[in-house]
Amino acid sequence: MPTVAYRGGRLHCEEVPLDAIAREVGTPTFVYSHAAIVAAYDALDRALAARPHLVCYALKANGNLAVVRALAARGAGADVTSGGELYRALAAGIPASRIVYAGVGKRDDEIATALEAGILGFNVESEAELEAIDAIAGRLGRRARVAIRVNPDVDPRTHPYIATGLTDTKFGIPMGRALDAYRRALGLAHLDVVGVDCHIGSQLTDLAPLAEAFARLRAFTLEVRALGAPLEYVDVGGGIGIPYHEGQAAPDPDAYARTVLEGVGDLGLTVIVEPGRFLVGNAGVLLTRVLFTKPRAVGNGATRFVIVDAAMNDLIRPSLYQAHHDLVPVAEPAPGGEPVVADVVGPVCESADFLAKARPLPPLERGDLVAVRSAGAYGFVMASNYNARPRAAEVLVHGREFAVVRARETYEDLVRGETIPPFLR
Amino acid sequence: MPTVAYRGGRLHCEEVPLDAIAREVGTPTFVYSHAAIVAAYDALDRALAARPHLVCYALKANGNLAVVRALAARGAGADVTSGGELYRALAAGIPASRIVYAGVGKRDDEIATALEAGILGFNVESEAELEAIDAIAGRLGRRARVAIRVNPDVDPRTHPYIATGLTDTKFGIPMGRALDAYRRALGLAHLDVVGVDCHIGSQLTDLAPLAEAFARLRAFTLEVRALGAPLEYVDVGGGIGIPYHEGQAAPDPDAYARTVLEGVGDLGLTVIVEPGRFLVGNAGVLLTRVLFTKPRAVGNGATRFVIVDAAMNDLIRPSLYQAHHDLVPVAEPAPGGEPVVADVVGPVCESADFLAKARPLPPLERGDLVAVRSAGAYGFVMASNYNARPRAAEVLVHGREFAVVRARETYEDLVRGETIPPFLR
Repeated sequence: MPTVAYRGGRLHCEEVPLDAIAREVGTPTFVYSHAAIVAAYDALDRALAARPHLVCYALKANGNLAVVRALAARGAGADVTSGGELYRALAAGIPASRIVYAGVGKRDDEIATALEAGILGFNVESEAELEAIDAIAGRLGRRARVAIRVNPDVDPRTHPYIATGLTDTKFGIPMGRALDAYRRALGLAHLDVVGVDCHIGSQLTDLAPLAEAFARLRAFTLEVRALGAPLEYVDVGGGIGIPYHEGQAAPDPDAYARTVLEGVGDLGLTVIVEPGRFLVGNAGVLLTRVLFTKPRAVGNGATRFVIVDAAMNDLIRPSLYQAHHDLVPVAEPAPGGEPVVADVVGPVCESADFLAKARPLPPLERGDLVAVRSAGAYGFVMASNYNARPRAAEVLVHGREFAVVRARETYEDLVRGETIPPFLR
Repeated sequence: MPTVAYRGGRLHCEEVPLDAIAREVGTPTFVYSHAAIVAAYDALDRALAARPHLVCYALKANGNLAVVRALAARGAGADVTSGGELYRALAAGIPASRIVYAGVGKRDDEIATALEAGILGFNVESEAELEAIDAIAGRLGRRARVAIRVNPDVDPRTHPYIATGLTDTKFGIPMGRALDAYRRALGLAHLDVVGVDCHIGSQLTDLAPLAEAFARLRAFTLEVRALGAPLEYVDVGGGIGIPYHEGQAAPDPDAYARTVLEGVGDLGLTVIVEPGRFLVGNAGVLLTRVLFTKPRAVGNGATRFVIVDAAMNDLIRPSLYQAHHDLVPVAEPAPGGEPVVADVVGPVCESADFLAKARPLPPLERGDLVAVRSAGAYGFVMASNYNARPRAAEVLVHGREFAVVRARETYEDLVRGETIPPFLR
């Protein structure tokens, strides 16, 4: 987790002190390290170098155009889950020929747009979707390149909200039924059956379930090939976990790549991986400022509330997933200081709005800046305007420079598109 | 829960068939009934008529300008929790003199704007905030009208995420310490101590905890008055629950108002109530269309997935609060049909994305329209662009007419404010 570090008593992202960003851009602000993103991409790309492969960045983790452009510049493809993500990937410069499109609920217009763009392939999640894509391709006079997402029924041992590869999920088709789905796909006039796809979940810190899934995927892919499918790629999905605690174990790219290539590397197919969080999660922090502190009378071991200007509308992971994010003061604390146990909360008017509970922290005071770590993935992309809060700015750091890559929203932005109808005037 | 009803086999909102709205505006779309909003407001206003009172609508529930304008036209005030909500309330035509401003994390610039607007009062949540408001008022040469939010330590028996009146919460000041806070406020040069405030939680369906809280609030208010505070109002907060299930019990406005007035009606003070969900929750539905169905192999009793085009980014209450929303097909099902138990899920790529689990429903098929009920509160206001999904349109129905009161977002809207920095070009 090297994205931020103290130098001369101030927390820096690359060569830029975070207090300088706060002064210029305000808070709350998401700050991403270009070097960290590129380093994570390059490490994974290198680790897979022994076989033909494509790293398709999962935009759902962080779709900011500058972030995607940084990865496009290294040769990344994209894993998109909607017409909006396809729009973002193309706008950032990822060629359609490197884009795969997953998701259980593709609308007709989204399918048509992807066909017209000429994407690498659809990851198809149901038999009904196969028929829909075939029909739309026929209507447009196009061929649709498809893989079917198959569920190997392996428990990924992660949070139930992000486990996706069990038969008890809305995603994909259970392996036991999937060969029939492939037969059906091969019989449809406008489909090219070019791949096999699998994704068992997100934030996986244990490689054993992945190894098990890939072994099943390999065997299944051989069965699909035996049907005569003109396969070009096997897509192993994403889900590589990252450390959220200082010192927490997580797969390194070499170990992960070894698991992938040992599983499906010998099939003579291009191997597609779909990392999201792994590339950007620890490349970003959410920079926030302490507004108030107040005593905490009774309760959970914490003796005070630290109220900051970032809230659940900016980062919903603590409320939604009970996720842990490390908090680091931007001014380096004096050594040997006694930590104070605090609840760190935002301004939103509900008790769900917290960033940390009963957390031992240096004694933060009004005006202090704090960096919420591991906020590069599933941070801004999940942000809302709840409590009419304008969404935070996003900043990309590059060596000694930084750029605002998304402006902070204004009050005018909040009401864009709203009108008072004539009957209320 | 009367907002939608079948007529001639089609679900209507007031006089407008929902399929007509879907045809013209698309899906997903939030649809609100003007009549339902106004009826709920008028019922509560009438029920409080025996005493001087002000109904301050809690914009956090639904801040759409047209919705707020509809309430402004009936004389409503506003309960705002941020500078953004203050902006919305003023833009919709609520006079500043009817606006109270709550929230644990008011920024200096938000406090200054509210002072300059001349709001009715701040609901102050900590001693530190008292000092901040006093200092800012002094700097601006203004007087700040304040109430202190006190916690009566009553368990509201609701979801822990929306319980706010226990001492174990970030909100307000525990009653045991609050008289000292009032003494402090009375000693500050730029404050006028005009009110006492209390709010114990949200979605309260049982009046007993409220009665208990109001009794404590009454006794406390007498103590504050004995200090010499020039009190003008007592603010009892909001939190009136609504039925989310057909037939679920919830307070009627008369019973609620009786509890309020029995509690604090005889103090000679204006009584402020802050309903949000109560006014709008059951006045709205989220209109969505079935994209696909697929079989569900094993699991929770459901035999199929129904995939609709609304997702957790549109309505996060099921994932975040495990909230129940009734689902109703827009085409009236034939009588005597056998229900099918289904999981109703959206297109977002995570298992947290569901609207209902193991729900007995008529056999919905691709293309069918479904209304998600009770979506008028904490629906659109919590929406995000997760998975790069443009946010839904909002429609207000008025008799036989309807108006788009917020346009559906476009792909261009998704990337507004984003720029690729020079070092990536």
